[in-house]
Amino acid sequence: MGKYTLGLDFGTLSGRALLVDTENGREVATVAMDYPHGVMDRALPDGTPLGADWALQHPGDYIQVLGYIVPEVLRKAGILPEDVVGVGVDFTTCTLLPVKADGTPLCFLPRYASEPHAYVKLWKHHAAQKHATRMTNLAAEREERFAARYGGRFSSEWAFPKVWQTLAESPEVYRDAAYFLEAGDWLVWQLTGVQVRNAAMAGYKAFWSPSDGYPSRDFFAALAPELADVTEKFAAPVIPSGTLAGYVTDAASSLTGLRTGTAVAAAHMDAHVTLPAVKITEPGKLCEIMGTSGCHITLDEHETIVPGFCGVAADGAVPGYYALEAGQCCVGDHFAWFAENCVPEKYEIAARERGLNIHAYLTELAEKLAPGESGLVALDWWNGNRSVLVDAELTGLIVGMTLRTKPEEIYRALIEATAYGTRVIVEAFRDAGVRVDTLIAAGGIAQKNPMVMQIYADVLGMPIRVGASQQACALGSAIFAAVCGGVYKNVGEAAERMGALSDLCYTPDAEAMGKYEKLFREYKELHDYFGRGGSDVMRRLRTNR
Amino acid sequence: MGKYTLGLDFGTLSGRALLVDTENGREVATVAMDYPHGVMDRALPDGTPLGADWALQHPGDYIQVLGYIVPEVLRKAGILPEDVVGVGVDFTTCTLLPVKADGTPLCFLPRYASEPHAYVKLWKHHAAQKHATRMTNLAAEREERFAARYGGRFSSEWAFPKVWQTLAESPEVYRDAAYFLEAGDWLVWQLTGVQVRNAAMAGYKAFWSPSDGYPSRDFFAALAPELADVTEKFAAPVIPSGTLAGYVTDAASSLTGLRTGTAVAAAHMDAHVTLPAVKITEPGKLCEIMGTSGCHITLDEHETIVPGFCGVAADGAVPGYYALEAGQCCVGDHFAWFAENCVPEKYEIAARERGLNIHAYLTELAEKLAPGESGLVALDWWNGNRSVLVDAELTGLIVGMTLRTKPEEIYRALIEATAYGTRVIVEAFRDAGVRVDTLIAAGGIAQKNPMVMQIYADVLGMPIRVGASQQACALGSAIFAAVCGGVYKNVGEAAERMGALSDLCYTPDAEAMGKYEKLFREYKELHDYFGRGGSDVMRRLRTNR
Repeated sequence: MGKYTLGLDFGTLSGRALLVDTENGREVATVAMDYPHGVMDRALPDGTPLGADWALQHPGDYIQVLGYIVPEVLRKAGILPEDVVGVGVDFTTCTLLPVKADGTPLCFLPRYASEPHAYVKLWKHHAAQKHATRMTNLAAEREERFAARYGGRFSSEWAFPKVWQTLAESPEVYRDAAYFLEAGDWLVWQLTGVQVRNAAMAGYKAFWSPSDGYPSRDFFAALAPELADVTEKFAAPVIPSGTLAGYVTDAASSLTGLRTGTAVAAAHMDAHVTLPAVKITEPGKLCEIMGTSGCHITLDEHETIVPGFCGVAADGAVPGYYALEAGQCCVGDHFAWFAENCVPEKYEIAARERGLNIHAYLTELAEKLAPGESGLVALDWWNGNRSVLVDAELTGLIVGMTLRTKPEEIYRALIEATAYGTRVIVEAFRDAGVRVDTLIAAGGIAQKNPMVMQIYADVLGMPIRVGASQQACALGSAIFAAVCGGVYKNVGEAAERMGALSDLCYTPDAEAMGKYEKLFREYKELHDYFGRGGSDVMRRLRTNR
Repeated sequence: MGKYTLGLDFGTLSGRALLVDTENGREVATVAMDYPHGVMDRALPDGTPLGADWALQHPGDYIQVLGYIVPEVLRKAGILPEDVVGVGVDFTTCTLLPVKADGTPLCFLPRYASEPHAYVKLWKHHAAQKHATRMTNLAAEREERFAARYGGRFSSEWAFPKVWQTLAESPEVYRDAAYFLEAGDWLVWQLTGVQVRNAAMAGYKAFWSPSDGYPSRDFFAALAPELADVTEKFAAPVIPSGTLAGYVTDAASSLTGLRTGTAVAAAHMDAHVTLPAVKITEPGKLCEIMGTSGCHITLDEHETIVPGFCGVAADGAVPGYYALEAGQCCVGDHFAWFAENCVPEKYEIAARERGLNIHAYLTELAEKLAPGESGLVALDWWNGNRSVLVDAELTGLIVGMTLRTKPEEIYRALIEATAYGTRVIVEAFRDAGVRVDTLIAAGGIAQKNPMVMQIYADVLGMPIRVGASQQACALGSAIFAAVCGGVYKNVGEAAERMGALSDLCYTPDAEAMGKYEKLFREYKELHDYFGRGGSDVMRRLRTNR
């Protein structure tokens, strides 16, 4: 009889269950389901309008998805609940919600159904920028030691800016929230009946560290007197991500069909959980997860500070190493925006006639272009910037259009812009002394679009390998579950048996590298001019909207 | 029995004939026809590829169009040839072709059928930028007096950069060309059998002035020894535009059905000819012709020099005044580019369901937006810049995109960008001491799109009147023809009777003006940064294509 684990991956638009054979990493079955309410960025379900830069989710969706994907994946695989020895969960982050002491989300209370602050603030909720900016400034003034771990600049996506925005705009929700917690931790609580916080999300998104805990009461009081005791709303044990959080309760068993008592791992960040899935367990390799946004993680022996990065956390991805993280706010979202808003009808018709989806059709046209041929360069800031610059108020820019500019040229320029964005990150790692010898990419774009990957290799001047799993996050969760379930002694051992790379390898082309070297300099000039204070036009245009 | 004149308007894409009653300006009939070869910007008819920035036309198209529109307009109007007392011609400029001594275009010769330089270089042929730049620099070094009339900077669109490019890249064509001349002058030659040059095109586009003639042999020899005698290829009488050039020949009568001996006016610039059609015969009023590109003309008592403008010419539009001209390289072309390349299928479907053309549909969506609401600002340089900056190597830019940016927001931003471009021109006129109290707009966009006109009024903070004729250029040509045909003593008198304004008047809205004041400052900051040497990224991206 084999032993199986279940990886549950909760992304931006859907949740997925993956059942994995722990002996060899074989993916036995997978089931996904879209969140019924998706991303709420215009209005609540009852029509209550949302402000600019808001992005919410409905916590009921997570339960509904859980109750469908787990029984369904067991049914599809034909596996008995008793053969599942562990469950791991990864989640987007910082995706934060206010709950009562018993874990009930405040938005479930009728009196808060029309209150936007009672819902889940999704990672890409960007309406707390001014709070993030004030925190950054105050931490600098006070020379707060914790700030260094985050390169001195805090993102509006993180926990305390989101909590402070709630306090400022809806004091009732703030008051009635016994806890604010990550949706990933909340889901594990629903499975196990126990509230624990995972160290990766606490470390990267809530200023927590094993040695210092959360920032001081003084710091929060200096932000706003009412925030003085905010960490009481975060009071729960913090344990390393992916380690044992508890066991499936009877109630959770009824919902999911899992056996009561099945081991459940503490939640993990959807990005960081990928590393064992692509066999990264040591420094020198950079993992880039290319999804709606991009996330870049590497390991180091030291607590290296990279200016403007998302953060560094001890045991943040793989035990025994510091994990360093950087991020790009939109990658797939970028291309999806283009496909949704900028593709002429004649292209759609031609794609249909050829039986291609629109991305495949655009790729066919764009891959015929030489680097620089279009004369276009874009800044990939459609969703702000959260690496190096860490500024959600930056916006997209494209330069070089003429009356002969074609849609596929713009499409390619947007792809190139995300590759330049990655290069800025790689150079910042190296400048800080962190080794980056090769890139291992994961995510749908990495596996499906050779043109994108070749552009990345040419722009970065580095070979790129690609993870084999189509569900690298879920596989990572299943790997951690295998350790919690007692199948393997540690993550390294589990990764060696269950992780996998594909045979794809993209090698930089010398001629293209030379051309992209020039184009990257143009990108960098625009990046620094608009991103580092040469012009504040982006910020002013946003403010005056 | 009434007396009629015929205005012939040769635009970028088509030629039009308008038959007008000289007594009251009534437009009796009109006929237009597209040029069979349109604008050739990718390849010659035989497939010979063209370089970047090329734009050619086929002179055979002009004859073919002439032979259709004139007989057809007479037939349609039911007017006898003997009731037509004069013909006026206006044409795009500088639209230049090389011909043999008898006027035969070189591209008609079999040995030159595949030689791009043997064809007509359309006004928007921009491949001679380096020649224009060298001319500008040399004229500055030599302190050439003529340069001041053009604000010290020469456009790549003008005659001598185009001729020099021909010499540099096809010495045979240069050698075999007895003349280089404007297509407008060439067409008048075909009608009358006499070669004359019109003063407006010679003045604005070929450095000619009544007092000094063309630049010196020394100047041209300093550019290139082979160019020393280039003005011999321009040797023909220069007469004021719109004055009597000659009479219809037997051959032209056979082609057109006009009576042999009908008076033909010298060609006129398609923009400048509009002034009498919208009753501008004195200073203080700025005429903006909004077509594929934009052209701004006003009158002044003095030879005022406006830095970087297209030029000033004595009697350049209306006898007795200096005419000052500025231009925007793309207006309608800008919106057409968007409609062609950037409108998603669902918008096209929705427009069809509503029975609207795509511009009308986009306008419906865009006019609901408040100024600044989109957070977008664009630089209207998709076709370079030929006012104030005079630099064909500048390219388009748009900033402020987010993942929520919609097509109609980009569409409106492009419209606003052209309005900001007009405001830069108006401010440059005023800074030089030229009165601009009101704007009178002509062209299809002015008459058909109230949203565009209101945006212009709000951005400019000036009332805007709109010309009544749907064929203002052709009507202007018919007005000049009425003077040549002896119906009126002078253009002022003819304009008073035959020109007309519509009842439309757009008044600036105070609130929108305030918002656009802010947005214009953003435009201006980007304009000066990218246009005045803050960054050369646009130029480098073009050069490295």
